[in-house]
Amino acid sequence: MKDKLLYEGKAKQVFTVQDDEQLLVLSYKNDATAFNGEKKAQFEGKGRYNNLISAKVFEYLHKNGVNSHFKKALNETEQLVEKTTIIPLEVVVRNVAAGSIVKRIGIEEKSVFNPPLVELFYKKDELGDPLINDAHALILSDATEEDLAQIKQMALQVNEKLQAFFKDINLQLVDFKLEFGRNASGEIVLSDEVSPDTCRLWDLSTGEKMDKDVFRQDLGDLVTVYDNILTRLEAL
Amino acid sequence: MKDKLLYEGKAKQVFTVQDDEQLLVLSYKNDATAFNGEKKAQFEGKGRYNNLISAKVFEYLHKNGVNSHFKKALNETEQLVEKTTIIPLEVVVRNVAAGSIVKRIGIEEKSVFNPPLVELFYKKDELGDPLINDAHALILSDATEEDLAQIKQMALQVNEKLQAFFKDINLQLVDFKLEFGRNASGEIVLSDEVSPDTCRLWDLSTGEKMDKDVFRQDLGDLVTVYDNILTRLEAL
Ligand SMILES: Nc1ncnc2c1ncn2[C@@H]1O[C@H](COP(=O)(O)OP(=O)(O)O)[C@@H](O)[C@H]1O
Ligand SMILES: Nc1ncnc2c1ncn2[C@@H]1O[C@H](COP(=O)(O)OP(=O)(O)O)[C@@H](O)[C@H]1O
Ligand SMILES: [Mg+2]
Ligand SMILES: [Mg+2]
Repeated sequence: MKDKLLYEGKAKQVFTVQDDEQLLVLSYKNDATAFNGEKKAQFEGKGRYNNLISAKVFEYLHKNGVNSHFKKALNETEQLVEKTTIIPLEVVVRNVAAGSIVKRIGIEEKSVFNPPLVELFYKKDELGDPLINDAHALILSDATEEDLAQIKQMALQVNEKLQAFFKDINLQLVDFKLEFGRNASGEIVLSDEVSPDTCRLWDLSTGEKMDKDVFRQDLGDLVTVYDNILTRLEAL
Repeated sequence: MKDKLLYEGKAKQVFTVQDDEQLLVLSYKNDATAFNGEKKAQFEGKGRYNNLISAKVFEYLHKNGVNSHFKKALNETEQLVEKTTIIPLEVVVRNVAAGSIVKRIGIEEKSVFNPPLVELFYKKDELGDPLINDAHALILSDATEEDLAQIKQMALQVNEKLQAFFKDINLQLVDFKLEFGRNASGEIVLSDEVSPDTCRLWDLSTGEKMDKDVFRQDLGDLVTVYDNILTRLEAL
């Protein structure tokens, strides 16, 4: 089914699919990168965990009415998705202050955002994915004002659903990054991945960090943490 | 009339006014700073030019229906203004790409923004006045969504008026920074200064830079340039 390598990103390889131009295979890699690619490592098994966790997230979102690119997990490290034209925005939703925002706007770590805070970043590695406002987004992408409103509304809907999803496995959803794309019918659908690489997740009992911050901040063994998340999800 | 020094900023001293708590005297200094205070110098006469040019701008805006803090120029370096509670936002309007935005979002210098681009920065020297979005502004200031809409609308109105104002002296208004404050009646009024320190102005015939970039980029004698602007304004 997998045909040609179309693109290799930092976390996934993207393959075309034989005889179906509207599908892609996303192959999750074991590579971990942080700080805009400055910090790099490989973790045996990481690709598998992200693929399986991301698949569970997309299945849950599908059941809860969120349109996404996800079709199905194909095997341990690969999933079949609808091909979309990615809108070059990283859409970040924050429930609690952590990471870059703390120093950027001088807000205390763990401050609660109520309502949740939505931020747009321009997805452009060469520029370090800078924060932008809506007016920039209209210039830098082909999204319209209505598209931006829809994207933010979908991001907040995903947030509500995922807060419940992760609460069920005793994790607090601190923040996360989404990407959206336009499919062949012109609809905006959630794309890319939702995994512990793209979410901040804190154990609700211990406060322990259960996400890529373990790698960013050298807090322990990343694979053990990701395995723990998958185990909790499989126990549901 | 001038009473106590209330605050000394990078470009102005702020004095209370005897027997009137709702007024302030802004005293323009000869100091020039750039790159968040990293580059510093003094220019004999600069305070006078900025005071006199800023006064002419505010008078013009007043005649054209823009509410501001400005009352009158008191002397060569000082003006009387209404005391406001400054909203800690730097409101930037850009007609043409120049300065920080070029590298920040990877846009070619001199690209035209149509409609003009409005950006909000959090006025906080310690953080380097970071770019923020509307949601941040709601968190970091006491402005409401309606206030932000009004501020942006006023900024665009100022832009229209000032484009005409500067065109009359053969200058292109490339971009500028505004500050707004709330007066005793709770109204949002344009505050602070509008001068070649806070605007990018290019000579319409020669393209020459006629603003603080002369200092930032060591392009020539700042005072000669500011004197040229005042002379053009006085010749009208
Ligand atoms: N449904 C999709 N259609 C097309 N491209 C997609 C889809 N989902 C994700 N992508 C893109 O796949 C690429 C590979 O992912 P990743 O390795 O995370 O890349 P990056 O290093 O750009 O973050 C990214 O550019 C991402 O935007
Ligand atoms: N009408 C006003 N009422 C109160 N404060 C004002 C008014 N207009 C300007 N200010 C404030 O005066 C201070 C002094 O100006 P400036 O020297 O430019 O300071 P800064 O270094 O903070 O930019 C600034 O904090 C500015 O926001
Ligand atoms: Mg990615
Ligand atoms: Mg100032």
